[in-house]
Amino acid sequence: MSLAITFDDVRAAAARLAGVVHRTPVLRSRTADARCGAELFFKCENLQRMGAFKFRGAYNTLVQFTPEQRRAGAVAFSSGNHAQAVALAARLLDLPSVIVMPHDAPPAKLAATREYQRGGCAGSEVVLYDRYTEDREAIGRRWAVERGMTLVPPYDHAQVMAGQGTAALELLEDAPGLDALLVCVGGGGLISGCAVAAAALAPDCAVWGVEPAAGDDTRQSLALGRIVSIPTPQTIADGAQTQASGTLTFPVIQALVRGIVTVDDAQLVQAMRFFAERMKLVVEPTGALAAAALLADGGAAGLPDLRGRRIGVIVSGGNVDLARYAALLTAG
Amino acid sequence: MSLAITFDDVRAAAARLAGVVHRTPVLRSRTADARCGAELFFKCENLQRMGAFKFRGAYNTLVQFTPEQRRAGAVAFSSGNHAQAVALAARLLDLPSVIVMPHDAPPAKLAATREYQRGGCAGSEVVLYDRYTEDREAIGRRWAVERGMTLVPPYDHAQVMAGQGTAALELLEDAPGLDALLVCVGGGGLISGCAVAAAALAPDCAVWGVEPAAGDDTRQSLALGRIVSIPTPQTIADGAQTQASGTLTFPVIQALVRGIVTVDDAQLVQAMRFFAERMKLVVEPTGALAAAALLADGGAAGLPDLRGRRIGVIVSGGNVDLARYAALLTAG
Repeated sequence: MSLAITFDDVRAAAARLAGVVHRTPVLRSRTADARCGAELFFKCENLQRMGAFKFRGAYNTLVQFTPEQRRAGAVAFSSGNHAQAVALAARLLDLPSVIVMPHDAPPAKLAATREYQRGGCAGSEVVLYDRYTEDREAIGRRWAVERGMTLVPPYDHAQVMAGQGTAALELLEDAPGLDALLVCVGGGGLISGCAVAAAALAPDCAVWGVEPAAGDDTRQSLALGRIVSIPTPQTIADGAQTQASGTLTFPVIQALVRGIVTVDDAQLVQAMRFFAERMKLVVEPTGALAAAALLADGGAAGLPDLRGRRIGVIVSGGNVDLARYAALLTAG
Repeated sequence: MSLAITFDDVRAAAARLAGVVHRTPVLRSRTADARCGAELFFKCENLQRMGAFKFRGAYNTLVQFTPEQRRAGAVAFSSGNHAQAVALAARLLDLPSVIVMPHDAPPAKLAATREYQRGGCAGSEVVLYDRYTEDREAIGRRWAVERGMTLVPPYDHAQVMAGQGTAALELLEDAPGLDALLVCVGGGGLISGCAVAAAALAPDCAVWGVEPAAGDDTRQSLALGRIVSIPTPQTIADGAQTQASGTLTFPVIQALVRGIVTVDDAQLVQAMRFFAERMKLVVEPTGALAAAALLADGGAAGLPDLRGRRIGVIVSGGNVDLARYAALLTAG
């Protein structure tokens, strides 16, 4: 079976994104290196526009809309980074966006999404729903059907996956010769794009996924050889609270990812504190998944000994409410 | 009267520091640009080794020690970034360092300084004193006299000033054509080095200093044409709690700096929150001084209208205790 995307798709996405996305810095930390006995290269997607890699995939998708799709606009349902990514990409491309968010989403996220829509195309709005009585997918589909808007899924979509893969493409250009690449896993959009880029640019580089211990559906799926669905996991890594890999992302993960390892919430907090204290970076819990596998006490269950290696680490995002962030930095 | 340093000194410092300091990234924020109606270029010295620009000046000084000075080592008194900078530079150069710190300094700072000394030259230690009954300068001088150690002052020293100037040298290379450069002012080591670099590389670039409103000794000194000394100012910008400019730094400021503007502590907190929320950067209060002049409500008293301009902003450091940081992010 052929995979949903090839490296040509990632390269084409990179050309579309040039000058639009930040080429985020690859930061080093001698303290981190000493702690792991390895050379770590942190690809800082928390410094990406809107604060996460998600902007890459959203923009790569919307910029390929047909004129008709552009007129009708994009719809997305998300309470997280995907919502803001679609809102920002739509404004930049001057097309309408409708973002379906739960009415009890954090006020900061509602405000940020509306701010990205501001000054954009008429018809852009945040649509609130009651997550206890309404079905967000049905609401999204209604906008798609009634207004002809295009639903942009958060990960299970070839153009989204190709866009996310440009993060690894940049990292592998800036830090050649990596032995391993660690990437967080939610629905698998980021890791599938990154694995395709790594397979082409650094075939000897082992790509490892990192999931929350409480939400290891992809690890289970790889073990069983089919997509496993789990109840919404309880973890502070809200960007990885997915129930299952996508039907497009999972085959890529099966084909190109070496394995999935897990870390728990306490380890995520340790990694977030390391980023704040030693690297002066604000990283959201999900954004700290890959780094926690190396930096937190105990490491990640299932990860082989990587001492002496050159390791790429994707820091996927930094969008965390300041009050929550402050609480996580100081709790315990 | 000739100034303490020339651009050749800054350029020579840059050559000594190559491969030792991080060439810190110059980050952009479209949100910041929109808020100011200008193009801002943030030179992120919070991402420098040991978390602040101070490493530049300390290393540039210690690396020029004579063999005899190397054997005896360096002594510094500081409870802040200068202490850690000297400790780290000494370890890298394999010479002893004695850091004189108050016994009630934050435990995190004591621990960090000792960590930088660890594995370094024998004889390196932190010496504690009682700030209510003892004189740290006398203690530092005693070590200098009795052991032949070289006292490294935090700012009023040509090699320190030249080292700090490399921050602006890098920024002006990476962001050519700046119309203005904003730099925080404590004792004046950073701004004097930066002003010398700017005068040579970008003579049309107006260099502005930013002081805490409660500690505007340099602004007063410029107004009176002589160094004014004030009581230790009460401000959260602990790196700018200096009482007076240096005798070497002040003439450079007089000659090359356009003026000094001030911001208050509430504005510093606003800027710190902007960095955390929008740029995902941990910035200490002193590190936020220059940015606060542009980004905080009300701006800085005395700053001209810079809309439409290209403005460099030095983000000088990110060393802030996490508990204090969390409190500042969420207070009020």
